[in-house]
Amino acid sequence: MWPDRRLLDLFKIDLPIFQAPMAGAMDTELAIAAAKAGALCALPCAMLSPEKAREQVNIVRQQVSAPVSMNFFAHTPTVPEPTKVAAWRERLAPYYKELQLDPAMPLPSAARAPFDAAMCEVVEDVRPEVVSFHFGLPEASLLRRVKDAGCVVIASATIVKEAVWLAERGVDAVIAQGAESGGHRSMFLTDDIATQPGTFALVPQMADAVRVPVIAAGGIADGRGIAAAFALGAAGVQIGTAFLRTPESKVNAIIRSSLAKGDDGSTAITNVMTGRAARGIVNRAMRELGPVTAEGPGFPHASAAFGPLKAAAEKTGSSDFTNLWAGQAVALGRELPAEELVRALAEDALRRLRALSA
Amino acid sequence: MWPDRRLLDLFKIDLPIFQAPMAGAMDTELAIAAAKAGALCALPCAMLSPEKAREQVNIVRQQVSAPVSMNFFAHTPTVPEPTKVAAWRERLAPYYKELQLDPAMPLPSAARAPFDAAMCEVVEDVRPEVVSFHFGLPEASLLRRVKDAGCVVIASATIVKEAVWLAERGVDAVIAQGAESGGHRSMFLTDDIATQPGTFALVPQMADAVRVPVIAAGGIADGRGIAAAFALGAAGVQIGTAFLRTPESKVNAIIRSSLAKGDDGSTAITNVMTGRAARGIVNRAMRELGPVTAEGPGFPHASAAFGPLKAAAEKTGSSDFTNLWAGQAVALGRELPAEELVRALAEDALRRLRALSA
Repeated sequence: MWPDRRLLDLFKIDLPIFQAPMAGAMDTELAIAAAKAGALCALPCAMLSPEKAREQVNIVRQQVSAPVSMNFFAHTPTVPEPTKVAAWRERLAPYYKELQLDPAMPLPSAARAPFDAAMCEVVEDVRPEVVSFHFGLPEASLLRRVKDAGCVVIASATIVKEAVWLAERGVDAVIAQGAESGGHRSMFLTDDIATQPGTFALVPQMADAVRVPVIAAGGIADGRGIAAAFALGAAGVQIGTAFLRTPESKVNAIIRSSLAKGDDGSTAITNVMTGRAARGIVNRAMRELGPVTAEGPGFPHASAAFGPLKAAAEKTGSSDFTNLWAGQAVALGRELPAEELVRALAEDALRRLRALSA
Repeated sequence: MWPDRRLLDLFKIDLPIFQAPMAGAMDTELAIAAAKAGALCALPCAMLSPEKAREQVNIVRQQVSAPVSMNFFAHTPTVPEPTKVAAWRERLAPYYKELQLDPAMPLPSAARAPFDAAMCEVVEDVRPEVVSFHFGLPEASLLRRVKDAGCVVIASATIVKEAVWLAERGVDAVIAQGAESGGHRSMFLTDDIATQPGTFALVPQMADAVRVPVIAAGGIADGRGIAAAFALGAAGVQIGTAFLRTPESKVNAIIRSSLAKGDDGSTAITNVMTGRAARGIVNRAMRELGPVTAEGPGFPHASAAFGPLKAAAEKTGSSDFTNLWAGQAVALGRELPAEELVRALAEDALRRLRALSA
């Protein structure tokens, strides 16, 4: 049926489709639906406490008998430089005034913690079948513990060099995150947004460079994309944006409305919103401050000052300061229940694969 | 054999492979080799005089009995603003001094003329089987004359909106120029480089939006890419960068050396070198002046001041100021004779297509 069975065997799943972990945009409901249809489900844990992460794994397992993957960030945390924070707040002050907010109001710190010992204990305890990392890998001792817990480990690479680096450190599969993909880019050996390769160029070059299976991500939203990923040498796909318009996604009405209007030229890679490169539908902040800027206090600190702006703007129905994370195939998204969507994706892909050699 | 025969029938060719016109990097020799293997060959005419363009068509026809395509630019020419030219020369003056050149030396004007009445007469006279346009279409009366001469007309689009615009004006097929592709981007309804979609996202959305066949371009350099293009809904592919390392290409030794060293993260889209967006291996000028700049006197005038720098730097073996146009799959290029390369591409693609549903 499928041209490459490596991922099905490695992850013990029915379909070579990975539901992408999307921190802030989903929780257990989407994961459960994806798992029920036979995809590998993922729980984004980067914005969760260890207790919450443990709880979510348990909820999924109560609902469906299927492998679960937990996703973590593996960035090196930085302390924000006060001068840069002040300059960034100054830069955003006109927006605060426009929205009748106090530009000096106290801000909660941005919460995106990297994988650490506390999370590692949860992993060792709940033993998810799969652990995936973004922005590189945690330190060797933590990675060792994850592997010793019996978890299959995968991680995202945006250039071939990153995939080779990951494979050398023992990951079981690499995600080729093409430039089309929505949300944060996993870049960790490069910070050059301008040279990030697209899915079409990246997948075959990555497949040539590493022995582990390559999972294609970026621009994949229907059966055509899944078939094309296999053609390029991928053993499966990771799909995110296509799930954002399902009823199970947790994005709000303002984001849903933006997603419904998005087209092939609506998104850009920006570092304005959080301090790291991420693709989203161009909002006012990206347009007026970027989409790429050398200012800002870095990841994730740049995002803190957008909190009050986002909340105030959204009250008036505006997405000016909202993260509208989405990939370049946002317009191929469908308003289907996620379980139904996964089944449709798989059926379309198999039909497409058959048609290609008919 | 091929999953979609529309282009084979429309262009009366054996293979759904279009050799990309690459102005400045090729002439009749590459076109002849590509045509002999069964691809649609293309002569880039944007930097040729009408007499020279006519001569090249005749040379190809003497060597091979196959359809010929002539490629033209369709940009709106601009007169360079003297203040912008002066500022640009000032910006480049330190490089002139470094290379012991006079920053005020007279420069020949940059020669990239759009399709005009004189070229149209050549077309009406030699009647190439195909005419392709970049940067939009010529004015309606000229386009009418090209169609009345019996030429099949194709043109490149970088976003779905451009493809729809082209289809409404009667083109017979559209080239979906994904962001991965090397050389100048055909952008004509947008000037926003940051939102340009990659091949993987662009092709299916374009195929959904227009009734004419879609030719995929960008990141395609082997049989995997050709098979993937069909999977995404394309009826064929246009391939450029993969031909640059063939003996028939006319790029010099410095460019060849850069191409041989290029990898998936070596290229960026820049407007520094010519005033229009184009993808190439990052050279010193792109790195230090861009890769994207709001300065410069526009296309093609920005390129004039690089002429002396390029010549002087190349004498020392440096590609600091050389256009290293190439796509993101540059590393998949092979040093094969072009005819052999086309045959290998087709065989690999058919093998790949068969394997996908085995």
